[in-house]
Amino acid sequence: MAKTTWKPGTMIYPLPAVMVSCGTKPEDFNIITISWTGTICSDPPMCYISVRKNRHSYQILKDTGEFVINLTTQELAKATDWCGVRSGSKYNKFSEMNLTPVPAPNVKAPMILESPVNIECRVFEIKELGTHDMFLAHVIAVHADNRLIDAKTGAFDLAKANPIAYSHGQYFQLGKPIGKFGWSVEKKKTKTKKTEK
Amino acid sequence: MAKTTWKPGTMIYPLPAVMVSCGTKPEDFNIITISWTGTICSDPPMCYISVRKNRHSYQILKDTGEFVINLTTQELAKATDWCGVRSGSKYNKFSEMNLTPVPAPNVKAPMILESPVNIECRVFEIKELGTHDMFLAHVIAVHADNRLIDAKTGAFDLAKANPIAYSHGQYFQLGKPIGKFGWSVEKKKTKTKKTEK
Repeated sequence: MAKTTWKPGTMIYPLPAVMVSCGTKPEDFNIITISWTGTICSDPPMCYISVRKNRHSYQILKDTGEFVINLTTQELAKATDWCGVRSGSKYNKFSEMNLTPVPAPNVKAPMILESPVNIECRVFEIKELGTHDMFLAHVIAVHADNRLIDAKTGAFDLAKANPIAYSHGQYFQLGKPIGKFGWSVEKKKTKTKKTEK
Repeated sequence: MAKTTWKPGTMIYPLPAVMVSCGTKPEDFNIITISWTGTICSDPPMCYISVRKNRHSYQILKDTGEFVINLTTQELAKATDWCGVRSGSKYNKFSEMNLTPVPAPNVKAPMILESPVNIECRVFEIKELGTHDMFLAHVIAVHADNRLIDAKTGAFDLAKANPIAYSHGQYFQLGKPIGKFGWSVEKKKTKTKKTEK
């Protein structure tokens, strides 16, 4: 397999494309779409978002130290992209995209009602790295759309929400499931063979 | 939309599931599958991986300060899962999964030949967070399978490699493309109407 070598770049994909909501007052509420995000620790649960200093949300995030990560779906794809290219200095993104800000129980930043999963976050460190500052945060609480939770078993099925991924400049639907974590070492169930007489 | 509130947890999805290769000598080469990874800065390009202290790769990463992020595909899905659940203390993962370690130009860790994209990384900071330590790293170089690069235009099409995503305990293929970054604000091309006589 022949390969071409490139200079250093950002090539880890596919990534999430989350809508991060921030601000403390309705007139200042903003949404910024971010793919430079992820989980950095399982317990205590921590995550990060990396944000350019010139983004409208940057100062809000720095001043308030709180934000909500709102997962996105096929239905929210247009709003996800739009909130990533437009600036909160010129638009009220909630009203422009018909999204509903609802109060979060633990942080002042609003949650996006239409998102299937809202993750309340509180910043504990800001790292200046270069083009982007990294906001490292504790996950404070998670809220999930009841329609994704099996009423009997409590099982949560995120796939039902049609989540989207961002891969090298393009948004994608998720496709067919390949297997659960650990499927490669699962013992195949032995079929009981009936002895033919 | 009624929602259920959960205690804090790790709910940012979908994520990549990358195979991280490490080690300096063939007998010590190891592979660990990681979803707690992502880009943290565009320029200079930086990324992270978070790793549990009890993982076999942890000490190797700490001692060497170098690793390679190898992107995964549908074809590599079984190896991806297997390298995430088995331990390098018991198996030589390269030989068990028929993967080929090839020397990286800039770091001592090997690259996985069968992966469509190899990202050479050098650690600049290790943060102890809880269950996981976060390794923050500079991207040193990127190597991409020539078959994903258009010979005429140089355009790179990662989707051709059938990348996989990890979402809430399950691996998925990527599905249909939804749009490119910025599609929501693109002006529609006006069709030239021919006046009917």
